[in-house]
Amino acid sequence: MEKYIDKARILIEALPYIHEFKGKIFVIKYGGSAMKDPLLRQNVIMDICLLASVGILPVIVHGGGNDITKLLDEVGQETTFHNGIRLTNDDNVDYVEMMLSGKINKQIVADINFSHGLAVGISGRDGCLVKAELFDAENASMDRVGKICSIETALIETLLNAGYIPVISPIGTDSNGKALNINADEVAGEIANALCAEKLIYLTDVDGVFENDKLISQINAKEASDLIEKGVISGGMIPKVSYCIQSNVDNVHILNGTLEHSILLEIFTQEGIGTKVIKA
Amino acid sequence: MEKYIDKARILIEALPYIHEFKGKIFVIKYGGSAMKDPLLRQNVIMDICLLASVGILPVIVHGGGNDITKLLDEVGQETTFHNGIRLTNDDNVDYVEMMLSGKINKQIVADINFSHGLAVGISGRDGCLVKAELFDAENASMDRVGKICSIETALIETLLNAGYIPVISPIGTDSNGKALNINADEVAGEIANALCAEKLIYLTDVDGVFENDKLISQINAKEASDLIEKGVISGGMIPKVSYCIQSNVDNVHILNGTLEHSILLEIFTQEGIGTKVIKA
Amino acid sequence: MEKYIDKARILIEALPYIHEFKGKIFVIKYGGSAMKDPLLRQNVIMDICLLASVGILPVIVHGGGNDITKLLDEVGQETTFHNGIRLTNDDNVDYVEMMLSGKINKQIVADINFSHGLAVGISGRDGCLVKAELFDAENASMDRVGKICSIETALIETLLNAGYIPVISPIGTDSNGKALNINADEVAGEIANALCAEKLIYLTDVDGVFENDKLISQINAKEASDLIEKGVISGGMIPKVSYCIQSNVDNVHILNGTLEHSILLEIFTQEGIGTKVIKA
Amino acid sequence: MEKYIDKARILIEALPYIHEFKGKIFVIKYGGSAMKDPLLRQNVIMDICLLASVGILPVIVHGGGNDITKLLDEVGQETTFHNGIRLTNDDNVDYVEMMLSGKINKQIVADINFSHGLAVGISGRDGCLVKAELFDAENASMDRVGKICSIETALIETLLNAGYIPVISPIGTDSNGKALNINADEVAGEIANALCAEKLIYLTDVDGVFENDKLISQINAKEASDLIEKGVISGGMIPKVSYCIQSNVDNVHILNGTLEHSILLEIFTQEGIGTKVIKA
Amino acid sequence: MEKYIDKARILIEALPYIHEFKGKIFVIKYGGSAMKDPLLRQNVIMDICLLASVGILPVIVHGGGNDITKLLDEVGQETTFHNGIRLTNDDNVDYVEMMLSGKINKQIVADINFSHGLAVGISGRDGCLVKAELFDAENASMDRVGKICSIETALIETLLNAGYIPVISPIGTDSNGKALNINADEVAGEIANALCAEKLIYLTDVDGVFENDKLISQINAKEASDLIEKGVISGGMIPKVSYCIQSNVDNVHILNGTLEHSILLEIFTQEGIGTKVIKA
Amino acid sequence: MEKYIDKARILIEALPYIHEFKGKIFVIKYGGSAMKDPLLRQNVIMDICLLASVGILPVIVHGGGNDITKLLDEVGQETTFHNGIRLTNDDNVDYVEMMLSGKINKQIVADINFSHGLAVGISGRDGCLVKAELFDAENASMDRVGKICSIETALIETLLNAGYIPVISPIGTDSNGKALNINADEVAGEIANALCAEKLIYLTDVDGVFENDKLISQINAKEASDLIEKGVISGGMIPKVSYCIQSNVDNVHILNGTLEHSILLEIFTQEGIGTKVIKA
Repeated sequence: MEKYIDKARILIEALPYIHEFKGKIFVIKYGGSAMKDPLLRQNVIMDICLLASVGILPVIVHGGGNDITKLLDEVGQETTFHNGIRLTNDDNVDYVEMMLSGKINKQIVADINFSHGLAVGISGRDGCLVKAELFDAENASMDRVGKICSIETALIETLLNAGYIPVISPIGTDSNGKALNINADEVAGEIANALCAEKLIYLTDVDGVFENDKLISQINAKEASDLIEKGVISGGMIPKVSYCIQSNVDNVHILNGTLEHSILLEIFTQEGIGTKVIKA
Repeated sequence: MEKYIDKARILIEALPYIHEFKGKIFVIKYGGSAMKDPLLRQNVIMDICLLASVGILPVIVHGGGNDITKLLDEVGQETTFHNGIRLTNDDNVDYVEMMLSGKINKQIVADINFSHGLAVGISGRDGCLVKAELFDAENASMDRVGKICSIETALIETLLNAGYIPVISPIGTDSNGKALNINADEVAGEIANALCAEKLIYLTDVDGVFENDKLISQINAKEASDLIEKGVISGGMIPKVSYCIQSNVDNVHILNGTLEHSILLEIFTQEGIGTKVIKA
Repeated sequence: MEKYIDKARILIEALPYIHEFKGKIFVIKYGGSAMKDPLLRQNVIMDICLLASVGILPVIVHGGGNDITKLLDEVGQETTFHNGIRLTNDDNVDYVEMMLSGKINKQIVADINFSHGLAVGISGRDGCLVKAELFDAENASMDRVGKICSIETALIETLLNAGYIPVISPIGTDSNGKALNINADEVAGEIANALCAEKLIYLTDVDGVFENDKLISQINAKEASDLIEKGVISGGMIPKVSYCIQSNVDNVHILNGTLEHSILLEIFTQEGIGTKVIKA
Repeated sequence: MEKYIDKARILIEALPYIHEFKGKIFVIKYGGSAMKDPLLRQNVIMDICLLASVGILPVIVHGGGNDITKLLDEVGQETTFHNGIRLTNDDNVDYVEMMLSGKINKQIVADINFSHGLAVGISGRDGCLVKAELFDAENASMDRVGKICSIETALIETLLNAGYIPVISPIGTDSNGKALNINADEVAGEIANALCAEKLIYLTDVDGVFENDKLISQINAKEASDLIEKGVISGGMIPKVSYCIQSNVDNVHILNGTLEHSILLEIFTQEGIGTKVIKA
Repeated sequence: MEKYIDKARILIEALPYIHEFKGKIFVIKYGGSAMKDPLLRQNVIMDICLLASVGILPVIVHGGGNDITKLLDEVGQETTFHNGIRLTNDDNVDYVEMMLSGKINKQIVADINFSHGLAVGISGRDGCLVKAELFDAENASMDRVGKICSIETALIETLLNAGYIPVISPIGTDSNGKALNINADEVAGEIANALCAEKLIYLTDVDGVFENDKLISQINAKEASDLIEKGVISGGMIPKVSYCIQSNVDNVHILNGTLEHSILLEIFTQEGIGTKVIKA
Repeated sequence: MEKYIDKARILIEALPYIHEFKGKIFVIKYGGSAMKDPLLRQNVIMDICLLASVGILPVIVHGGGNDITKLLDEVGQETTFHNGIRLTNDDNVDYVEMMLSGKINKQIVADINFSHGLAVGISGRDGCLVKAELFDAENASMDRVGKICSIETALIETLLNAGYIPVISPIGTDSNGKALNINADEVAGEIANALCAEKLIYLTDVDGVFENDKLISQINAKEASDLIEKGVISGGMIPKVSYCIQSNVDNVHILNGTLEHSILLEIFTQEGIGTKVIKA
């Protein structure tokens, strides 16, 4: 019996956090190892379902990663990256889109629905959600890599209001209706900005932002800017952190998705487990 | 870290129950020891707040007990019970009502609001909620004891739709506008019936229904009727159990309110801790 | 027949006033003699019901007065006032709250409901309506006397939108959830301010504001300020009048509640019977 | 002062009637002397505005009478009646419609609006409100006299929901879109039936239904049927009374429109002044 | 078959225009020859119904013209114009109003309803739509000619929201409730302004605005102002054009109503057929 | 000019059909040649956009066809059909789903959005839309071929109410959350049934149903049953036709998608161009 009472106490501990975040939007960028490992995967799905069940409004943006490379390999196409960007062009864009919007997206949806959530999978092409243009118009090997022009949030709002968890594939549309492959971090950030999200959560393969080998647990926008200038925050971490500096997002969290239940631990405990960037 | 992960796992375990009960009405009769002991009291309040925070709609009906007797004593009045009914009459009804609707009711409201819930305290006189008549018109010593004629649920629905937890004092009004003291078990049961509640939960001082010294964990309406006939279920337990037999209530739970977090344990675990009466 | 036609003509006379005030909020501070005398009491209740029946939105704030003193006396406690403030402390606050929120409040509700109105009785603790702090933190004999920090109007608006007449007991909550006794004039005024009420009506035991023994029928905010400065308006009249000077309330009326139907006479006749303070 | 208090008492007397009829639809057939005499006219308008101001939903259907005859005379056309029906045909229908829908209708609207009501004038042609067919297809002199096929209440409901008093001219449309002149008593009755009105009030030039020179104050549907069979109720009174017998209308009132404030007297007094036909 | 395919292609051609104007308000001043000739009349009605069927919100304001003169002639009254204004006074205003609000208005309504539209005919007196004052208070022969003081759009919005096409007769009310005859061009313009209409379309008997005998197809507000100053735009064309210069109307169109389907041709073709005045 | 007037006349011809079908749901099964040929494809997209622009509610269900075979070929997998069913199993289901939900689906969405429509692409897995079970549990080569158990229409209704055109990929979910490939004709038919669609339109490669080499233009459910029994209607035509016989669908249309604008021709002309099955 005492074991059960302990469980009840733990539920009760979550009460103030539930109270604080009820009705708030959390945009979660889901990718990397947390998407590959079946157990971690199930943990993330469960965390998302729990957030939704207590009245938080999660919006999922997923990446692709290895699966795309594997499919391209199957059809005899080489995969090339440049500065971390997958060189997507007329030759391979269909495979990239199919894998992202047709398989990974729908698998996340099915997993959530199986765990008592209620998800709907869309891509940036649906409802004119993500309007984009060429990332580098000069580079033919990137003639299907996009950067975001604008976000039309109406479809996401329709789905949230009707009680669905939107799961979004990072494909946008150019002005001619052609698909463009866009960095999922950017899609998550811009959607969080457009929705004035309470939290933008990046599930990564690292524990957070480090300074002198020490994890920074919390940092404000001003301090983050300084660390970027000093080079302490660098590479792909810069754009993630920046969404707390120059956008409508209230908090950015950098979490290690390879830690079991990292989302819940970050949200529902005092200390958190990753790096939290706050506005001020 | 592992400790925190365990906590997250326990939150996750609640997921299917949250999913099942979201948007359902639970009428909770709150009285007895669970109302007297400060720690138990806080546990019950917390449990109610947690139910509300995950989308369940709790409706609280409270009793009075010792506090009324104490107040009557202070003003030099004797307290008399007959068959478990407090003999309320023109001489003492004001004290009974004041204690129930003015102190106990408002204290529960304040406790819930302090624990991140949002409660509103009303009595059966507000919004014409409980229309009643004399329980025993022949007995002058009971000329302010009522039995329920009808329930007007509009006010409760207004409060639930606006996100409030209604806390209800068991005082009704007769056709002349006079206050009548009504058994809180009956008020809880009739309100649950009128609301077609998913669950009607009685917090008592016993563990549940026993047969041959063994706690009955679950029982259906037909079996309950048989046990009433056989005398196994008797006394004040009969009307409680009956609300699952002849009303719109789906389940009746008899719980021991002196067990810490008994509501959560009953709702969010497979086995439960008290007696659950089901329709079929 | 002619008698009936005269009655019809009188109903018709009210038409322009009904037209003018439809859908407007009138906050009525109800206390003093008008609450003690049974006949006056019934007149006030009727007036309130008539206002509601023609589409005006009355919000009632009541005081306590003699009844509290009487109850304290019954339980052997002395009653002490200081500058018109009842010295409420840990010893007597329960009795004060019980009488206000449990008896007076519910009796007004029952009277309105009996006269074809539909009322709901709440206190400032319900729905976090009145947040308060200590009036004088240095004075132990007033350790349960409060002054208002903020008003959360959501519950009142929920009740008004659903067609109920809110009846409010002047008890607030401090940040620890404890009850504080607050001057009913202040509660009425702050609620009227928070609701941007059309009218704030004080039912008193005097005819209104006098200057040189002559009743002032109407006065504007500027003139009222001058009279306060000159000492013509003094004592408990100052805060009442001030709600028209420095708040969102459009008009403050000081009426003699011992005059039969004083509310209707003030609202539905050209001349009025008390003192009306207007913005400009 | 006592005079004013008497006035307030009279307002209070109306309270139970207001309570009873709030939100109910009253269809009022307005015609005859009550429309001709300026003072009576103003009385009727005021009565309608008062009904609306206390939450009753009046729907006005007006007739035409002398004004049509006068216009036809001006343009050199003869006026012929047959069994009380104005013989309307291709030659004169435009004048009939113009006078009804263009002058009488709009004058009533303007009068109501001037008296603090808010009216909208329509005819049975607007919003496909009244679909009709020829009353007597064999009779060329009646080739523009209609009888009602069906009522489309949507427009009336739109106007009532938006707070307007609909004023309806008794012109319908046949299946080719042509105007047909219809008996206003029939239009009022069929609209009341289609709206399931609480009351259908005929303002006539007589005091009500008489039996042996004695005014019948109230009568039920069964008794009314008997009186029709016995010939006591005859002529144009039969269809009026019948709307309480074979339709969804709850009560039919036959009032003398030449009595000042006859509508208010009938509605807001115990005895009433005309004949009231009730369902059972 | 090919013929049918061509038809489908033409429907498809309208797609971008439908897309552009969906949900936008078009105020159409309907008068002149387009109202007299039966075939043109049917064309205009059809055009209006088609606009409504594709989601555009047409609001029709009609004039009177010859029919009024004819009626006045029938009743032996002379018709006099001064500067294009019909001299309306106490002697003839009833005939003017009857013809406008009772016959022309209801005929347009019936025609629209017959062509699968759903119209409601009102005048500026209904719902206090058009408040007006005397155009020239010094001139007795114009003691019923009005100019607009203000527009109360609530009734139009109620009708549009409920799916009706409002058809408006150009009669307003003065502060005493009397009818005033108002220039229909002005009524159309002021209503378009008050509704912030997308388009204000004048159906006239000329092809549009000409400069040096050449039709101006499109012109902006600045150029229009210049042409007014130069005298190129003159007479009754000035106020029409001005509604694009100093009001909330986005575009004013001057069309020749004697051209078959002129409204559709102007709206659903690239070139248009009349003169279009644009904001900038 | 005359050319333009002819165009306007053609728009006007569509008026009665628009009137008839406004707000009705048309489920369109889109597949076969109409999906392969770029010109036909554009025609179908345009037809869908036109339907939506005039207030009809199109719901698109698409098939896959050649593209799936081509992708399977690229990854070195054989394609096998059995009785017209693509043998989908664990080895190839990912490719089938990717092509259907990730490429074909999103391309239709992008085409509609480019043509002024507003589409959202989902699969039967989103929002638990299509719940399915194994078509033939005994056959390992079909261990990912499904048949429909139930349709949950909430997501489609959410999208329609928000103004979107739902585009649906024929993939369902079994009770374990696994993807099942389902015949698109069946998905279209069951969704039409669940939505009580006005029309279910099959775009095929034949002109319709033939009897003795003669196209049947219209047929009722009873006659269709007889023709099925006689073998005149056979093969894949049977299930299509049957959705008019034993479901909530009002009409089933079999059209030749290789005819330009076949949807518009069928809907907006008297004769139609394919076979229309009506209820009675």
